[in-house]
Amino acid sequence: MTTNGPAQPTPRRGRGRPGYDQAAILRTAVELFNRKGYDATSMGDLAKELGLTKPAIYHHVTSKEQLLGQALDDALDELTAAVTAAFEDGAGVTAYERLREVVRRSVEVLVAHQPSVTLLLRVRGNSGVELAALERRRWLDERLAALVADAVAEGALRDDVPPALVSRLVFGMVNSLVEWYRPDGAYDRAMVADAITVIAFNGLARHES
Amino acid sequence: MTTNGPAQPTPRRGRGRPGYDQAAILRTAVELFNRKGYDATSMGDLAKELGLTKPAIYHHVTSKEQLLGQALDDALDELTAAVTAAFEDGAGVTAYERLREVVRRSVEVLVAHQPSVTLLLRVRGNSGVELAALERRRWLDERLAALVADAVAEGALRDDVPPALVSRLVFGMVNSLVEWYRPDGAYDRAMVADAITVIAFNGLARHES
Repeated sequence: MTTNGPAQPTPRRGRGRPGYDQAAILRTAVELFNRKGYDATSMGDLAKELGLTKPAIYHHVTSKEQLLGQALDDALDELTAAVTAAFEDGAGVTAYERLREVVRRSVEVLVAHQPSVTLLLRVRGNSGVELAALERRRWLDERLAALVADAVAEGALRDDVPPALVSRLVFGMVNSLVEWYRPDGAYDRAMVADAITVIAFNGLARHES
Repeated sequence: MTTNGPAQPTPRRGRGRPGYDQAAILRTAVELFNRKGYDATSMGDLAKELGLTKPAIYHHVTSKEQLLGQALDDALDELTAAVTAAFEDGAGVTAYERLREVVRRSVEVLVAHQPSVTLLLRVRGNSGVELAALERRRWLDERLAALVADAVAEGALRDDVPPALVSRLVFGMVNSLVEWYRPDGAYDRAMVADAITVIAFNGLARHES
């Protein structure tokens, strides 16, 4: 969906006539929600940011909440795919290998979808859309804790930390990336994924085990 | 500072006459900033939450930004004390021991001052007060990265992950507590501090090193 050119320059360079499509509006909305906070952002603010009139935005989207729902679904679909893929890896793959893999894949998702994951991690459950997202997050948390428990049961992981706490802390470390990671910064995503798996599974200390 | 009782019940049970002091107003303000977002919270919202009139609040505080500054200073003073204490531990204490200790102390601070640390971690630099807080956070980050570098240099920590990245990730894991930790939940603070130091320094895997 595109409209004919608004008076102001568009945020994307395209080959055709300048215009906004729904994906571009969503991208700007997510950036604005993260910067100002979702509750503090109005459709008027979004229109201003895009250089559009409010009616022009409503041509593309029905409400602010619809944009939030789309962004949260984007993040959750990717994270769910990463977790599901880890469980679907072929027979003969240990829970420990699956867990290492899902940590790596989560880092990939977070870096590739940083704005929508950032928004997801800030959701507090203030609306039906937010509560549905929290429900999907809870499902992911449970799957991850179950995977940690499986890795403990097979003898690959230490058993003196509760699996649910391990899962919270390791994925807390992964999620903390949203606060500072920059794709054009000093560390590429493979380096960060390596560092997280090394810290979580092997530990930083040289002389202890 | 206290005033005589307002019409509505106070949030604190005290032995004397009901009233609000500045500490109680600050506590409620921080809770509201975390729940609604700082930018989306007005002094009118705070007055409503406290059951006070706006003039009554302005008897205690000069502005919303003053409350933000006090909350951020509370968190930063405690974190700074934890980091400074680690550097001041007696001679003969290795950088590795100092680092483990500062991780433990950070968990303690976070649990004891969770609302103000939560607010601190969400600051984006939208005002002078926020920029000053980010500057103090940066100083802490630099001290912690330097401590990691010292521990690597003394041979206690693996040297294949850059110290600044280690510091970001380990304290990212600590900071992630603000998102879910509840003092009345399944894990006490010692258990969480143990889990984080075990994961970060010793690793979860049983058969690798």
